[in-house]
Amino acid sequence: MTAFGRHETRTMTDLGCEAVTGALEDAGVAPRDVQAAYCGSAMAALVHGETGLGQSVLMELGVRGIPVVNVENACATGATALHLAWRDVAWGIHDVVLAFGVDKAVMPKGTVLKAGTTQFEAQLGDIFPGTFALIARRHMESYGTTPAQLARVSVKNHDNGMLNPLAQFNKPVSLETVLASPMIAEPLTLLSCCPNSDGAAAAIVCSKEWLSRSDNDALRIAASVLVSGDYEPLRDMTCWDSEKRCVNQAYEDAGLGVEDLDVIEVHDAFTISEIIHCETLGLCAPGDGGALIESGATSLGGSIVVNPSGGLLARGHPPGASGLAQIHELAAQLRCMAGRRQITGARVGLAQIMGGNKANDAQACAVHILVNDVTY
Amino acid sequence: MTAFGRHETRTMTDLGCEAVTGALEDAGVAPRDVQAAYCGSAMAALVHGETGLGQSVLMELGVRGIPVVNVENACATGATALHLAWRDVAWGIHDVVLAFGVDKAVMPKGTVLKAGTTQFEAQLGDIFPGTFALIARRHMESYGTTPAQLARVSVKNHDNGMLNPLAQFNKPVSLETVLASPMIAEPLTLLSCCPNSDGAAAAIVCSKEWLSRSDNDALRIAASVLVSGDYEPLRDMTCWDSEKRCVNQAYEDAGLGVEDLDVIEVHDAFTISEIIHCETLGLCAPGDGGALIESGATSLGGSIVVNPSGGLLARGHPPGASGLAQIHELAAQLRCMAGRRQITGARVGLAQIMGGNKANDAQACAVHILVNDVTY
Repeated sequence: MTAFGRHETRTMTDLGCEAVTGALEDAGVAPRDVQAAYCGSAMAALVHGETGLGQSVLMELGVRGIPVVNVENACATGATALHLAWRDVAWGIHDVVLAFGVDKAVMPKGTVLKAGTTQFEAQLGDIFPGTFALIARRHMESYGTTPAQLARVSVKNHDNGMLNPLAQFNKPVSLETVLASPMIAEPLTLLSCCPNSDGAAAAIVCSKEWLSRSDNDALRIAASVLVSGDYEPLRDMTCWDSEKRCVNQAYEDAGLGVEDLDVIEVHDAFTISEIIHCETLGLCAPGDGGALIESGATSLGGSIVVNPSGGLLARGHPPGASGLAQIHELAAQLRCMAGRRQITGARVGLAQIMGGNKANDAQACAVHILVNDVTY
Repeated sequence: MTAFGRHETRTMTDLGCEAVTGALEDAGVAPRDVQAAYCGSAMAALVHGETGLGQSVLMELGVRGIPVVNVENACATGATALHLAWRDVAWGIHDVVLAFGVDKAVMPKGTVLKAGTTQFEAQLGDIFPGTFALIARRHMESYGTTPAQLARVSVKNHDNGMLNPLAQFNKPVSLETVLASPMIAEPLTLLSCCPNSDGAAAAIVCSKEWLSRSDNDALRIAASVLVSGDYEPLRDMTCWDSEKRCVNQAYEDAGLGVEDLDVIEVHDAFTISEIIHCETLGLCAPGDGGALIESGATSLGGSIVVNPSGGLLARGHPPGASGLAQIHELAAQLRCMAGRRQITGARVGLAQIMGGNKANDAQACAVHILVNDVTY
């Protein structure tokens, strides 16, 4: 992945090229070996009027003639690209497939991101921060979750971001700073919301047969699940049924459970999101997510680290790339290359992401489980 | 498919619902039977700021929880959605997959469509009409193709469009009218260029096993090929190597040749396009496309009908839907449901489409071959 943050002077093509080149080099794959490619961007057309971004990047790198598909699934865009690449390989369609995601999401101050929201909802303030503020209020009401518990997610993820050279933010924030930062939508303050970021990330998926011909340090994709929302109007606002289905399917496909996980990356677009995702993954009972973060169990050095990369809150969030940036973190952790944020002996990792907002459900939720079968 | 044309008062979601509902009904498939879906739109985000269109449509129709992917590949967007649906079924991933495409492409007069073109190229006038005018000039220079031959493509396709109740244009145009219509980019006049249109189209792809449990009047997809461009800077401008590769692969996959085709839909975004595609498909030798159209061989009643639907020139062109509108026409023809434009005994059909413009090559080219194995 590229560094995440603000890349004012660089084009999306340029960012994509850096990420794809890095993935090809890391995997020991030549441009001519790539048999298909999926490029994700949530903002290319929406904000920058750019289409065919996948081909623009691959043309520069000499990856030509192959099937290339540009995909969009809001914040789950990068994970969707990976899911399609994984499917091509898992079902024997191709041996080597590229997935990458690119976005330039830093926008002029005051821009309202209406993605997945109708104009009418936008006028009501029911855009992402408003929606997640309602969810947070409901969680507080139902389970006694406190503003301090919410804020602690941001503190932890900023602490982690300091150890990640590619993260957008590399300064610690105190509980007081998070709570005292400008109120965006009560109870969510500025530092309780992830930033919009520029950046790109990429991954190569290859078959076992291809791998056996190389000496590459690869990971096994034990599960790759993509679902769309259930859109149940009367559902419990403090969790997503679609995410539950997605997570349970992933555990089943991998033959693994929450107790097997060594490292987790979740979609902490807002502090409340991480708390709910921890509950849905089974790290604690529903409603206990606030106590979980407070206990320190999900901090570096805790029993199950969540978002060691800094998550969306500190690593940053170019929506088309975030799903693959999570994979970048899992790959770093499971291959023992995560430097000062390394989780000792991490062997199994899970990445969860969701995107869009339709009838207050996600348009897409994706879960990937990665395993390192080699013992270091 | 919906009627193509101008749908000022309808949303893209509404148009998508009409097309998907029609496809489900035609296929005898219930919303709960659909296992995955691909939604194509080239304009949703670019022009309308809308994302997650696939989920917006499917939420309305009660198709929930399944993997849904929004795809973009310029004018090849609809064909890309179909290709992915076909792949899911061909490789046994799913039994029933939905592909649909939606666009609202009618734009205020004077809007410059920059899709696939950098700002610099747009400033030079090297947008689609400019690019295809250069290609037409080169074809005229190399092969003696005449303005009248080019114009005849438009006359033929407008004649066909009159017989298609869903076509955007239903008036005949004379050779003189085409030649005398306003010059857009010499030698291409207004009536030599396809319109931008609003509309949607959809298709259901199912496995042989699924089909055996229904009494549905289905067609076999004998080939589905998607490639990206070769981007050769010094190539012959009068054809596309990427299209040649795509066509040849499709013939090989289907075990069929040009002599087996009964009906063809090609991407006649401009009159010159149809002439070149006819050459590349092997209907005539390179350079003889002008003589071919003049001979009447590709008109209704001719030896091999091209664009009986009216093509992009008369049926209209919502880029996300056009690839699937071609399939709608092949399905109508091969199932003997094409009314006054029916080609007697049509059994094998081919659809070709290409999209985008990168280094003067297409970003994507797709060819589908459909066969009716039942004799009426």
